Amino acid sequence: MQGTMLYGPRDIRFEDRPYPTIMKPTDAILRLSATCICGSDLWPYRGIGNFAEPPTPMGHEYCGIVEEVGKDVKNIKPGQFVVGSFATSDNTCAICRDGYQSSCVQREFMSTAQAPFLRVPMADGTLVPTRELPSRELIPNLLATSDVLGTGWFAADAANVKPGKTAVVVGDGAVGLLAVLSAKQMGAERIIAMSRHESRQRLAREFGATDIVAERGEEGVARIKDLTNGLGANSVLECVGTQESMLQAIRSTRPGGFVSYVGVPHGVELDGQALFFAEVHLHGGPAPVRRYLPHLIDLVLKEKINPGKVFDLRLPISEVAEGYRAMDERRAIKTLLQP
Amino acid sequence: MQGTMLYGPRDIRFEDRPYPTIMKPTDAILRLSATCICGSDLWPYRGIGNFAEPPTPMGHEYCGIVEEVGKDVKNIKPGQFVVGSFATSDNTCAICRDGYQSSCVQREFMSTAQAPFLRVPMADGTLVPTRELPSRELIPNLLATSDVLGTGWFAADAANVKPGKTAVVVGDGAVGLLAVLSAKQMGAERIIAMSRHESRQRLAREFGATDIVAERGEEGVARIKDLTNGLGANSVLECVGTQESMLQAIRSTRPGGFVSYVGVPHGVELDGQALFFAEVHLHGGPAPVRRYLPHLIDLVLKEKINPGKVFDLRLPISEVAEGYRAMDERRAIKTLLQP
Repeated sequence: MQGTMLYGPRDIRFEDRPYPTIMKPTDAILRLSATCICGSDLWPYRGIGNFAEPPTPMGHEYCGIVEEVGKDVKNIKPGQFVVGSFATSDNTCAICRDGYQSSCVQREFMSTAQAPFLRVPMADGTLVPTRELPSRELIPNLLATSDVLGTGWFAADAANVKPGKTAVVVGDGAVGLLAVLSAKQMGAERIIAMSRHESRQRLAREFGATDIVAERGEEGVARIKDLTNGLGANSVLECVGTQESMLQAIRSTRPGGFVSYVGVPHGVELDGQALFFAEVHLHGGPAPVRRYLPHLIDLVLKEKINPGKVFDLRLPISEVAEGYRAMDERRAIKTLLQP
Repeated sequence: MQGTMLYGPRDIRFEDRPYPTIMKPTDAILRLSATCICGSDLWPYRGIGNFAEPPTPMGHEYCGIVEEVGKDVKNIKPGQFVVGSFATSDNTCAICRDGYQSSCVQREFMSTAQAPFLRVPMADGTLVPTRELPSRELIPNLLATSDVLGTGWFAADAANVKPGKTAVVVGDGAVGLLAVLSAKQMGAERIIAMSRHESRQRLAREFGATDIVAERGEEGVARIKDLTNGLGANSVLECVGTQESMLQAIRSTRPGGFVSYVGVPHGVELDGQALFFAEVHLHGGPAPVRRYLPHLIDLVLKEKINPGKVFDLRLPISEVAEGYRAMDERRAIKTLLQP
């Protein structure tokens, strides 16, 4: 088969790779129905951060049909349609039982999903099957639950979004937009999306944003204060991962309020004393998508949400390099890849 | 009268000061039954941090008898015994109603309490009266509720201490010791106090600590992991405010667990990416003592707790300079001052 490899900054190649095989008796092999490119893939694509020696395989969002399972796999069967998280989990350890499967004691991060076939470790703990094979139209929505929706959902959950309260979403990438959708599902009365791109503002409104703030930094904070009686918001969902966005989030939150952060931080340093006097709650990390998957898949199958709308570019997987370019240049919010 | 003034590093003087008077119609004047020296007073005493031009008045922990009230004070009456927080609060704004009175929109920090008489702004919102005048023996316990116990209680509350769970307390100062007492009251099954001073270890055990860890830094973290099946604790209460103690706290917490910080941080910088992958909850700030005062005063009056045991040195207030010296040299945990 062919798979996606990153050779260096902005050098993506779709090239011959070995078919994945069962390596441990708890593995499963999937034939992917769809995969996609994550905002976090753009960090190594742009050469930012410390990563493994190139070339490195890419991709961690996936859904598809089970081809084969190892001999110790009990609940996942060949022929089932399944969705899994970007982080594998045994779903039985104390950390998993607390709902933090993305920090499972046996966790591995998926990294070879931009390909037609995929090996998934700890299949029983990682994958969630549907009862029936879903229709083709639902595939983008189901793919979204694998990471981008699950991460937006965690942003809303970790920021304690509640009915009747005000939530602010910092970041208008796919995660930010689905954080808006998640805040809406959790009953937030007012949802303020911070965005300066018209097409993304439109999608934010469609997902439930009641207000748009285009300003950033101190001006953005001042606008949020204006909209919240000078106090700041109850919940602020930081969906970018830069120093500017993190400080904007903390300063937009009222004392006693909640800040979540779900994008891998790059160059973020928090001053202890400023944090102390802000008196906010902070919570974030790699989203425990597995915790939310059953509920999110259910919402999709009942057609209550359309998270797949964030895929505004769909390409055959052989054109994956163009998919990266389009996201890098912000011509696309998120690229779905069809194997 | 005479009051306590800081003239510069390690230069405390007890000298003539004007009697406080009603300045706003919402003020009260108290004749203090007792006051004390806070661990946080040692920062300016040692010349660390940015503070107002010297000389500056000192003191923010207090309880006593109401002498006089302004004409707009409705609930607090002359003759009552009252306790207040180090932060004043109207107790009616949206932030106060959320339980964050220490960040009240009208907050002022108290700073003249190491004296026989004290002006308290926003008396109705700041002070909590007892029904009857308490016995003299209870005064140290009641004084403790004003800050040091309320702060330890917030440490336990913000770190989500729950029955049956494991809590770690970093710091064996008076706040850390009362954080142990608070965790015990909240039902923690295992309470690990990190302390290397025998007399403080003894008091920690008396307050409810089940284990003592004397190691610090990476060794301390390794010991906590050993004691928690390699996972880290559910709740870690950071009661110091240094970079070392903060990192020790975060690294001792399991993913999904809770870290609280209640000591004003000095020189603390948190790396965003390390925080992200730690996947903990963080919450802290100036403790909203006013939220807890009615409950804590009730526990003291019913003689269920003895937080005043942290006062291992009692001096006439005229000897306040010796009180600072004893705490600075760690000869005393906490000094009570008798007006």
